[in-house]
Amino acid sequence: MNAIQKLKSANIEGKYICVGLDTDHKKLPAHLSTYKNPVIEFNKRIIEATSDSAAAYKLNLAFYESEGASGIENLHETLSFIPQNIFTIADGKRGDIGNTSNLYARSVFEHFNFDASTLNPYMGEDSIQPFLSYEDKFNFILALTSNPGSEDFQKSKLISGEFLYQQVIKKVHQWNKNLNCGLVFGATQINELNDNLNLINDLPLLIPGVGAQGGSLSDIIGLLFKHKRCNFLLNVSRGIIQKGIGEDFAEAAKSELQRLNNLVSESNQ
Amino acid sequence: MNAIQKLKSANIEGKYICVGLDTDHKKLPAHLSTYKNPVIEFNKRIIEATSDSAAAYKLNLAFYESEGASGIENLHETLSFIPQNIFTIADGKRGDIGNTSNLYARSVFEHFNFDASTLNPYMGEDSIQPFLSYEDKFNFILALTSNPGSEDFQKSKLISGEFLYQQVIKKVHQWNKNLNCGLVFGATQINELNDNLNLINDLPLLIPGVGAQGGSLSDIIGLLFKHKRCNFLLNVSRGIIQKGIGEDFAEAAKSELQRLNNLVSESNQ
Repeated sequence: MNAIQKLKSANIEGKYICVGLDTDHKKLPAHLSTYKNPVIEFNKRIIEATSDSAAAYKLNLAFYESEGASGIENLHETLSFIPQNIFTIADGKRGDIGNTSNLYARSVFEHFNFDASTLNPYMGEDSIQPFLSYEDKFNFILALTSNPGSEDFQKSKLISGEFLYQQVIKKVHQWNKNLNCGLVFGATQINELNDNLNLINDLPLLIPGVGAQGGSLSDIIGLLFKHKRCNFLLNVSRGIIQKGIGEDFAEAAKSELQRLNNLVSESNQ
Repeated sequence: MNAIQKLKSANIEGKYICVGLDTDHKKLPAHLSTYKNPVIEFNKRIIEATSDSAAAYKLNLAFYESEGASGIENLHETLSFIPQNIFTIADGKRGDIGNTSNLYARSVFEHFNFDASTLNPYMGEDSIQPFLSYEDKFNFILALTSNPGSEDFQKSKLISGEFLYQQVIKKVHQWNKNLNCGLVFGATQINELNDNLNLINDLPLLIPGVGAQGGSLSDIIGLLFKHKRCNFLLNVSRGIIQKGIGEDFAEAAKSELQRLNNLVSESNQ
């Protein structure tokens, strides 16, 4: 299965929750400190406990690269625990001039063999193209993000009457020659999501911002299913992986993921 | 000397050329292949040959992280060759929600001890703030970049009549409480640079795009000196480090840097 097939297949099976492996080595359960590599032990157990019901895993690159070379080795090893049929996202929000984006794309898609990346559109088409040229990989381009700073530029009104993030969505449709583009759209932006469903059309969505950031999972799911949208991933990071801090942390993560999956199923009746 | 003092001090000494260590392991002089670590041997010799006349070094993170854990070790080792008094820039164009940007900032400023970073403003103030809170470090925020894709969004016209990149410049002035902000402004955008000198005011500029990307060093320098601007860095990567491909590559880089520095001096009469 290539990346795009994995994503579709998860959604067809009714799986929509992406587990964010934003593993903070300062917030690990205390008993893991006796292990040689607590981050790896933590990630391994979280993945084992959740892989039967996770739609995808998103690895926030900052959490790994901030630990230097050993963090990069942890990133590699963590990926090796994820079953081959599950969609993986490198969340790095990269974007640079062509020859540099080529290297970022090669790193994410070849060196680490992720299925998908997140990309920042500010530098325009030639900064995104090296990623899109990997036909079997997928890319979520930032449209409207979940954070307060989304007001600063993304919601700037253009002379055409549209907002900047809407112009980004239009451009992504134009760039989507290989049908390997999607959008990042924050769960905190439910009114904007409602207003832009037609513009978004069939572009798959990666929706962060549920939980710690304040977005409501049931509101988002309710809206999307009401409009028969069934190609999206809802990312939950801290809400799942930090659900428990005791020896049963992996069980706690599994239960929380199941609870969220049940909420999804109930909305999808 | 803190980062800001290093930058000022270079400009006061008449040094304006930033050497871009975008070291491509596929484009190294052939004779270096006999070394255990050709990238490190290359960087070491380039730095030794250029450190007396370079205003700064910019390390493009993509070139290092695309090599995995060993690339990260190369990044560390390369930084150790750079004399303490020379300004160093981590060119990663990062930007993410607050807790993630915190980690990127810690990585760049604490783990690697760079003096400065490049940042992508698309996600707004809270994505930039964790970097700005390091009072002794410096940040160049993308305003108008050198690549063709700068047309896609950066030059979108807002309802206020200004371009998006001009709104970014205004916001950067507001964010600049610690006087540790500057702008990335592409050398290929000389007309826009001319038109925005008042808006840019005293924000230091990092100017990429000279040489391989088509920007003219003498035109840019001429414009800036004509308007008494003397707080900027002109980055040259391939134009310096790939100037020679034989055994004398480091001497070739040194000569080219000196030629560029002479051009600067002549313009600054």
